[in-house]
Amino acid sequence: MARRNYILDTIKDTFRLFGYQQLETPSMENLSVLTGKYGDEGDQLLYKILNSGDYLKKVNATDLDAGTAAMLPKIAEKGLRYDLTVPFARYVVMNRNEITYPFKRFQIQPVWRADRPQKGRYREFYQCDADVVGTDSLICEVEILLMIRRVFAHLKLTDYDIKINNRKILTGLSEVIGEPGKEGQLCVAIDKLDKIGWEKVQEELLQRGFAQPSIDKLEPVISQKGSNADKLEFLKGFLASSEEGTKGVRELEEVFALLAEYGEDEAHVELDLVLARGLSYYTGAIFEVKVNKVSIGSVSGGGRYDNLTGVFGLEGVSGVGFSFGVDRIYDVLEELSLFPADQERSTEVMIGYFDEKGKKYGLKVLNALRQAGLSSEIYPDEVKVKKQFHYADKKNIPFVIMIGDEEIDQNKVTLKNLHTGDQSMYDLAEAITLIKA
Amino acid sequence: MARRNYILDTIKDTFRLFGYQQLETPSMENLSVLTGKYGDEGDQLLYKILNSGDYLKKVNATDLDAGTAAMLPKIAEKGLRYDLTVPFARYVVMNRNEITYPFKRFQIQPVWRADRPQKGRYREFYQCDADVVGTDSLICEVEILLMIRRVFAHLKLTDYDIKINNRKILTGLSEVIGEPGKEGQLCVAIDKLDKIGWEKVQEELLQRGFAQPSIDKLEPVISQKGSNADKLEFLKGFLASSEEGTKGVRELEEVFALLAEYGEDEAHVELDLVLARGLSYYTGAIFEVKVNKVSIGSVSGGGRYDNLTGVFGLEGVSGVGFSFGVDRIYDVLEELSLFPADQERSTEVMIGYFDEKGKKYGLKVLNALRQAGLSSEIYPDEVKVKKQFHYADKKNIPFVIMIGDEEIDQNKVTLKNLHTGDQSMYDLAEAITLIKA
Repeated sequence: MARRNYILDTIKDTFRLFGYQQLETPSMENLSVLTGKYGDEGDQLLYKILNSGDYLKKVNATDLDAGTAAMLPKIAEKGLRYDLTVPFARYVVMNRNEITYPFKRFQIQPVWRADRPQKGRYREFYQCDADVVGTDSLICEVEILLMIRRVFAHLKLTDYDIKINNRKILTGLSEVIGEPGKEGQLCVAIDKLDKIGWEKVQEELLQRGFAQPSIDKLEPVISQKGSNADKLEFLKGFLASSEEGTKGVRELEEVFALLAEYGEDEAHVELDLVLARGLSYYTGAIFEVKVNKVSIGSVSGGGRYDNLTGVFGLEGVSGVGFSFGVDRIYDVLEELSLFPADQERSTEVMIGYFDEKGKKYGLKVLNALRQAGLSSEIYPDEVKVKKQFHYADKKNIPFVIMIGDEEIDQNKVTLKNLHTGDQSMYDLAEAITLIKA
Repeated sequence: MARRNYILDTIKDTFRLFGYQQLETPSMENLSVLTGKYGDEGDQLLYKILNSGDYLKKVNATDLDAGTAAMLPKIAEKGLRYDLTVPFARYVVMNRNEITYPFKRFQIQPVWRADRPQKGRYREFYQCDADVVGTDSLICEVEILLMIRRVFAHLKLTDYDIKINNRKILTGLSEVIGEPGKEGQLCVAIDKLDKIGWEKVQEELLQRGFAQPSIDKLEPVISQKGSNADKLEFLKGFLASSEEGTKGVRELEEVFALLAEYGEDEAHVELDLVLARGLSYYTGAIFEVKVNKVSIGSVSGGGRYDNLTGVFGLEGVSGVGFSFGVDRIYDVLEELSLFPADQERSTEVMIGYFDEKGKKYGLKVLNALRQAGLSSEIYPDEVKVKKQFHYADKKNIPFVIMIGDEEIDQNKVTLKNLHTGDQSMYDLAEAITLIKA
């Protein structure tokens, strides 16, 4: 947890600096809230809670033959949350009249997926989400870029890309290539470009009913290189005939313009014309962050949605949000050896002693150290000094205060710095000042 | 979460000050780990997770008739943790060779119980546990008293009692009244004294097979009043014939003696001869904390256990631990109006503006405020100033920086203090200094 807190505290500080307030929602939601929100695969991966008490009371012998899907509603009403977005949407709808908009909330809680565990994929993992709802201002998109850069700068991560695109551009693309209304299909296929390559994506597009001439028209988009400005310039021409596509280009242009108004450059921000993101509810900007030269997938992502709460009966609430994958960031920091060395230290001072008399004297010293705000402890059992030092060493404690007869007689303490090996006798007040320094 | 964090941060700071390190364990445990650890009622209240995939594959038509208990192992392998103690014991056993003893860990995570929700009783609630294992030093018991007092002092809770007793005393009592070996039954019955009174407890003891003459011998214990020293004196005589009881008295005496060695008094600490605590694994000191004049039950409790890990195959690991009921403490602070007024504030400064020009200027100001470490935000949409101030007011934001043409022309900002109503124009650097002050 020491290492995980290092990441979580950095993220929390950043969210707070940007005016987000923390929310937590219950671990369990009604299955009716969760089901159908994450696609068929998501429904499979939901953890379901067996009803308490007599969970078989609604079950007949014939239900057994009807199979797991038919039986499920009779024995399980609740499930564990699968992400933080759907519970948040549910929360907004339930509290629509109490909330002050724009509502900026962050949420850091575990989510659960009944997946096969593997590197970068866990059954229980923390998500860290920040969302603003009730505004369509692109300032929110820019602040997402700034928050990601702040978190990564504090974690000393330097080699990464924040990829940004806009769903309206993908809609525009499907229009100008002659396959209007198929942006969903286009997204799903193009999302795999990184993994399977352009050849295979073309095959998939064919299977999904795209005509080869339409696919060929995508070629210049796929091969587009250059600066963000170059790409925007290209898109302006390429999508000129699509109203929605042109709107997407304009939104992206404004994001970059606002970034400049903050006095910030475009470092790490890369317009990626084929960034699609799997989730179907995005309608505007989409983001994804990859750390380069590590074996972990994306560590952050998000986007704008115009109607996240519509599924719960509240229409017209636009919002934008993103999420940090803390457990993946953990793996990245470990792979790159970026955790600070003293992260696992908790106790600053241990009090050691030779005998019962020293222990008693030590208890008063201990109390004084804590009153001075120093995290400290005494070795609780009367054991050999060597064993006490072994404990301090294992726990990465930097200072030991030793109490012997001389210290008691002179009303002093011996302070030892375990890094340097230096030790001297001091008044307690002096020792406290030295430790704090 | 702002209010909950106020409590959690106080507790975490205290645990860290006393040298405890944070641990988290997974939400799910194998049901074999959880079942049988909390009594029959606990087993009923465990949330069980339906196996993923084809959860019916091991189920036959005849299983349905066998009932819920027989069917359970075929459809659910995992459950949600019910407390933090059992997962901790499981953790210690699994990591016994990597752990440095004495092992001081704290753990703050939700637990789940399939209970009927009511005030002070929730289906999901946070537990905050601190335990030391691998030492039987009574210093640990004293530090529990000190930690509770520190947390309560910081939360401004003044009217409360930390009740302390020792299981060995209860063992001694059952011996000297002539019912040796029945300390478990005695605990269960006597634990209800507060709720049902001495008459009913006597009835229950009769039902549990205690003879009336034995019960009568308990009378002086029940009616014992006076100081902690008085009670100890009484017990010394009363339990003189019981070896175990005498040991319990000696342990309690040492706890009070050590407390004095720390230079601390006995404020709030009350020896309660009939404190029993329900859980069966306690073997030494037991604690319970009640806040007076509120409608909530105990808000903290714990005790020493000599063999918590034995059930998982590791014998002889003594430990002592306690737990804060955060959600109950929340209710207490609310009932006593003890939450600080500014607790719900998150953003320190909001930037308001009259038009697009002001907004653009405001973005640079915003960036500077954040770089100075001030939690700040800009109202993202161009709306009337009144609406912007309404937002700041609702969000309890203490300062607004307003940007109009004059501010832009003079390269200044207008700072308004929403509490006092004062407003003036300043250089940005001056404004930042004022806000920080």
